[in-house]
Amino acid sequence: MTKPLNIGVIGCGFMGRTHSNAYNRVSNFFKTEYKPVLKAACARSADSVKAFAEQWGYESVETDWRKLIARDDIDAVDICTPNNLHKELAIACAEAGKMILCEKPLAMNVAEGEEMCAAVEKAGVVNTVWYNYRRVPAVTLAKQLIDEGKLGRIFHYRANFLQDWTIAEDLPQGGAALWRLDAAAAGSGVTGDLLAHCIDTAIWLNGGVTNVNAMTETFVKQRKHNLTGKVEPVGIDDACAFMCHFGNGSLGLFESTRYARGHKALYTFEINGEHASIKWDLHDLHRLEYFDHRDEGRLRAWRSIHVTDGDHPYMKNWWVPGLQIGYEHTFVHQVADFLAGLESGTPVSPTFREALETQKICDAVLSSAKSGQWTDVG
Amino acid sequence: MTKPLNIGVIGCGFMGRTHSNAYNRVSNFFKTEYKPVLKAACARSADSVKAFAEQWGYESVETDWRKLIARDDIDAVDICTPNNLHKELAIACAEAGKMILCEKPLAMNVAEGEEMCAAVEKAGVVNTVWYNYRRVPAVTLAKQLIDEGKLGRIFHYRANFLQDWTIAEDLPQGGAALWRLDAAAAGSGVTGDLLAHCIDTAIWLNGGVTNVNAMTETFVKQRKHNLTGKVEPVGIDDACAFMCHFGNGSLGLFESTRYARGHKALYTFEINGEHASIKWDLHDLHRLEYFDHRDEGRLRAWRSIHVTDGDHPYMKNWWVPGLQIGYEHTFVHQVADFLAGLESGTPVSPTFREALETQKICDAVLSSAKSGQWTDVG
Amino acid sequence: MTKPLNIGVIGCGFMGRTHSNAYNRVSNFFKTEYKPVLKAACARSADSVKAFAEQWGYESVETDWRKLIARDDIDAVDICTPNNLHKELAIACAEAGKMILCEKPLAMNVAEGEEMCAAVEKAGVVNTVWYNYRRVPAVTLAKQLIDEGKLGRIFHYRANFLQDWTIAEDLPQGGAALWRLDAAAAGSGVTGDLLAHCIDTAIWLNGGVTNVNAMTETFVKQRKHNLTGKVEPVGIDDACAFMCHFGNGSLGLFESTRYARGHKALYTFEINGEHASIKWDLHDLHRLEYFDHRDEGRLRAWRSIHVTDGDHPYMKNWWVPGLQIGYEHTFVHQVADFLAGLESGTPVSPTFREALETQKICDAVLSSAKSGQWTDVG
Amino acid sequence: MTKPLNIGVIGCGFMGRTHSNAYNRVSNFFKTEYKPVLKAACARSADSVKAFAEQWGYESVETDWRKLIARDDIDAVDICTPNNLHKELAIACAEAGKMILCEKPLAMNVAEGEEMCAAVEKAGVVNTVWYNYRRVPAVTLAKQLIDEGKLGRIFHYRANFLQDWTIAEDLPQGGAALWRLDAAAAGSGVTGDLLAHCIDTAIWLNGGVTNVNAMTETFVKQRKHNLTGKVEPVGIDDACAFMCHFGNGSLGLFESTRYARGHKALYTFEINGEHASIKWDLHDLHRLEYFDHRDEGRLRAWRSIHVTDGDHPYMKNWWVPGLQIGYEHTFVHQVADFLAGLESGTPVSPTFREALETQKICDAVLSSAKSGQWTDVG
Repeated sequence: MTKPLNIGVIGCGFMGRTHSNAYNRVSNFFKTEYKPVLKAACARSADSVKAFAEQWGYESVETDWRKLIARDDIDAVDICTPNNLHKELAIACAEAGKMILCEKPLAMNVAEGEEMCAAVEKAGVVNTVWYNYRRVPAVTLAKQLIDEGKLGRIFHYRANFLQDWTIAEDLPQGGAALWRLDAAAAGSGVTGDLLAHCIDTAIWLNGGVTNVNAMTETFVKQRKHNLTGKVEPVGIDDACAFMCHFGNGSLGLFESTRYARGHKALYTFEINGEHASIKWDLHDLHRLEYFDHRDEGRLRAWRSIHVTDGDHPYMKNWWVPGLQIGYEHTFVHQVADFLAGLESGTPVSPTFREALETQKICDAVLSSAKSGQWTDVG
Repeated sequence: MTKPLNIGVIGCGFMGRTHSNAYNRVSNFFKTEYKPVLKAACARSADSVKAFAEQWGYESVETDWRKLIARDDIDAVDICTPNNLHKELAIACAEAGKMILCEKPLAMNVAEGEEMCAAVEKAGVVNTVWYNYRRVPAVTLAKQLIDEGKLGRIFHYRANFLQDWTIAEDLPQGGAALWRLDAAAAGSGVTGDLLAHCIDTAIWLNGGVTNVNAMTETFVKQRKHNLTGKVEPVGIDDACAFMCHFGNGSLGLFESTRYARGHKALYTFEINGEHASIKWDLHDLHRLEYFDHRDEGRLRAWRSIHVTDGDHPYMKNWWVPGLQIGYEHTFVHQVADFLAGLESGTPVSPTFREALETQKICDAVLSSAKSGQWTDVG
Repeated sequence: MTKPLNIGVIGCGFMGRTHSNAYNRVSNFFKTEYKPVLKAACARSADSVKAFAEQWGYESVETDWRKLIARDDIDAVDICTPNNLHKELAIACAEAGKMILCEKPLAMNVAEGEEMCAAVEKAGVVNTVWYNYRRVPAVTLAKQLIDEGKLGRIFHYRANFLQDWTIAEDLPQGGAALWRLDAAAAGSGVTGDLLAHCIDTAIWLNGGVTNVNAMTETFVKQRKHNLTGKVEPVGIDDACAFMCHFGNGSLGLFESTRYARGHKALYTFEINGEHASIKWDLHDLHRLEYFDHRDEGRLRAWRSIHVTDGDHPYMKNWWVPGLQIGYEHTFVHQVADFLAGLESGTPVSPTFREALETQKICDAVLSSAKSGQWTDVG
Repeated sequence: MTKPLNIGVIGCGFMGRTHSNAYNRVSNFFKTEYKPVLKAACARSADSVKAFAEQWGYESVETDWRKLIARDDIDAVDICTPNNLHKELAIACAEAGKMILCEKPLAMNVAEGEEMCAAVEKAGVVNTVWYNYRRVPAVTLAKQLIDEGKLGRIFHYRANFLQDWTIAEDLPQGGAALWRLDAAAAGSGVTGDLLAHCIDTAIWLNGGVTNVNAMTETFVKQRKHNLTGKVEPVGIDDACAFMCHFGNGSLGLFESTRYARGHKALYTFEINGEHASIKWDLHDLHRLEYFDHRDEGRLRAWRSIHVTDGDHPYMKNWWVPGLQIGYEHTFVHQVADFLAGLESGTPVSPTFREALETQKICDAVLSSAKSGQWTDVG
């Protein structure tokens, strides 16, 4: 007997699409008691939201998010807006007793995030943040191997997220398509957009971060703003790198930029342990590189695991060995786990509270970049 | 204004799943006038077909394919059965005036295929065969480059399809899960199952084949049969390799096996032209390897194109650059093209008649393997 | 106490260089009782041979190979001439009681090879053929693994040797630099030049070949001949592919061409066994790809072994782990093994007799390509 | 007419071997007026130096470096000792009017390096430091491309040098084989040993560094000392990472460690420019990865250039296209360039003065790691 879970999504951009697809597909591949129903989509523009709803099969539309949240027929709200609206929306949802699935990063900063955590915890509503890369099967496999102790003592964690789409100086900032370049809407640049992903994975795989030392750069200092039509200073970080110490004694090195020519969305991480090491790369997300020092000497080598077998995480639900899945499936997995969490009563990770940890590191990174000092993570 | 296209699927195995998924998803990603409706699913087992229909959202079920074909509310029939039923079903569909989407290979042999072509052409029904790998974006890009003349005169075409799932001698043959090992149901082994894919792509990219010279092998000579419970001779080819001449003067070399330890579904092809060469590999299907001799000498090299940009075939309909899609999307593309073909009145390729060409080569290959002689393609 | 081994080399082309380098270097890296002394170099052109001798440190020069062979101060003759001179020179050396190191292929054909074997065996002189790729550390490691039974029953062996340097139609044939395109000097095209390497490795790793079925092609039918100045028919095979059966029941597939745009010297082989598989590629000769089905399921994968550790064949004699050696080192290894063989009294492999096996397969391949028939290996 | 250049080498360890090999081989491959003669080898142990001299062909031996430097028949001294002897030896050589080829890093610290520079410049003797990786053909090709402006404005430079050979806690420190772990002999750990290489390449390719911010770690705090037999504190850095600003406005990120399981000698760098990017990896040193944004959109990709063609740096002196060289050849190239520099009167790069720049950055890195502050490069 399946139970409907009525979803209302706010924000119809790129993330609105990935989440809608996940809701639509999950029941074809995962057996869950709860079944998402695309009840309502919400965006400011009536035309846009109507087209979006038609494309994805939402039953109704709203142009005022307050109305959507007020509706009795909505069980869960999915927040897909720019970052500067997360707090207000999430608190309103919590007060209305709605479950919340919030796009990452949690908030503009730690202060906002704290308010959001307080609100959902006070209201007792189910909450999660869309750090989807945890649910790439290869990344989940990495988590399994680490949890089983296969790596032993960890010495190093390094990650980067490299893109190249903002190199052109005549690219404007702001507005619907380019809010990620507008500090007022995004809060930060690559730190909140890209490093937040790296950090979420890192603390999931390797535990908490103690302190950080960062540098940021804005290569293109001013761009035309789409909302004002004027050339305005660029307030975001185009690039950010930081060193850190993890609580387990290992060293971390992170970097992100949108000025790495040749990389579209190269998110990679590597973790070096006493016995074994692991590498992963979003550009070939269906593979996990693994090195085990306990292999026979002559045959020791990096293995390129094609993570498509039935005994790999999530993969028995898809096709047959050798046939890869892609980016969008990470969201399907998150929905599947969310629904399973509802069924079992276990909060699906990361919750707001867990995602706040990433926010704390992001804030420490930005603060360190300003001060030039080692900065403790709040 | 969208028009419903009522689909009835016969056969609820692996291919039934991939096709059902494609029908469900196409309208979320491709704008088409026609919109598939999952009207009915059909399989012999009432329990199986009911579960299948529920999982994928079919409105109704049948256990007798004659009833499904007879229904007025079915526009198109999707044949996902083992190969030995293709002919009978397809002819019945044609006579009932149904559009047909038939799983590959077209038939058990050329004689059957000829009958099927005659039937659909006499009835004037729309027909296509699911050679899905043409619609991997990287493969379609290869087709574009070849059609533009970027490769110049072609010298070599080589392809292989390597698997390793039948090495265990205690694996049985026959029945629902293992009909591919049963000659009575499959017609042939790797030739019809795997080489047919390689051949379809090859003739699409490089034109017709003149003659072939093949060898086959059955490594495990007898296996327990699931339907009889007895150990019986294995009638299929476990491995097949063949040399050939293409009409354009180039040489072809093809190989397939299910005894290549370490390869789950390694379908690769390479084409060498006077000016440029192309390679592709199903295990990393989102990449196309390209070498262009016209590049500056010092910088000449194989390029590993990450086929995820908006100007790559089909990709503007999916996510953003750098984010890969997977295996299942090839079927979505085929449905999208099929629907667009209905709209424009252009038959979507490959039709039965086009797929018959692959059947002729398969038959010539099996015949050559028996005779040990060069064999002309019918 | 080291013993000098006086070397006389005949032929100062590319192979003359690789062998001279090997003689010069071997004693810096391998402890051997015998130490090569570069006694004399021989070539028709006095100027060329003088320059060659000066560059490599030969003590003297000859322009008549009969004189070199007649010299008492020469222990071993290295035959680096075009193929059409191998027989005459080798027989003369044998009659003069000289050790012989002959460049591959052994001869123009089996008949010549038989005469050569008879001559060296009658004379009882030490003899070897320069099939250098056996001594790539990664290839030798493959041999170790196979001999230890790590692969189990073998199902498939495939190899190719792809180049692209003869595509230009205005490339002439014949003469010092281009004798490989001249059938009169080379005997055959890619079969003797490139496939001979593939075959030597294959029978070393996988045992004898029973029968073959081949096709050849000459894409450019006529080229200007450097010796006559006239446009003349091209007598060599530009490309050759063949299928075969090995004595152990496995299937073989081989291909070579000089028309594979993008490949300079891509010699690859792959061997698929019941338990494990191996791949190797000359373009990255310091790596061996290895897959072992006995690994834990989740972690099964191709391993890319960086063959630079002290426990890898030959590598303890070179640098430290991680630091690769290259092409030329294979010749150093062959000299080292040859010298060790002198010391121990064990003939170094492949001897003329062993290399004759490769010649037999080459002849069968060329014969099959003409007849279009399966052809037994003599 | 060749001129002998009499070499005396001090230190017969790993670097003594690589340099001796380079002197022995250079004249076989590069035409130079000067020809190295291995005149004398020097080490403390009479047995060791005698064996070394015999293996490599040195004419004589010394056990007191003062005697070697005092010999009239020595033109150039090659300093291959641990770092703590570089200064004293180099100054003595300079005062004796000898040319100096000094192993990297230049000195224990900047103060020593300054004295060494002053000494050689006062004496007017030819001097160079063995930063051999500049002469990997792929790295030299990178330099060409950058100098030609192919990359445009540079945004990022990142490099790392990862090893895994000191993870075992029972590995001792100090003595002939393990002086690199002994701060008294090495001055620092990975910073001077490995990052010095990364830094030398970086400033050669990307210009000077303005300031740095570093972190270091010593994972194993105490090890048995081979010279004292006692467990003693480890004084070196096991790992070091730093961020920096280059003078051209680009950001740098560097990391080195001997605790990265799975990496034997993984030295990689990547440089991202406005138009193009470059990557290189010591584990496959014969390849250069190149991405050019000016390529046609659909075909834009990373190219893996197999740097073995005649138009690639140094490669016309070796074999034929497709045949790779290895690690040791970088030293041959440095000797060839050194000899050519003597002939033309142009100092070969890097001189002591140029290598001092790397020393300054190393010192700033170590200082920053202690203070936790951004530190200007002297």
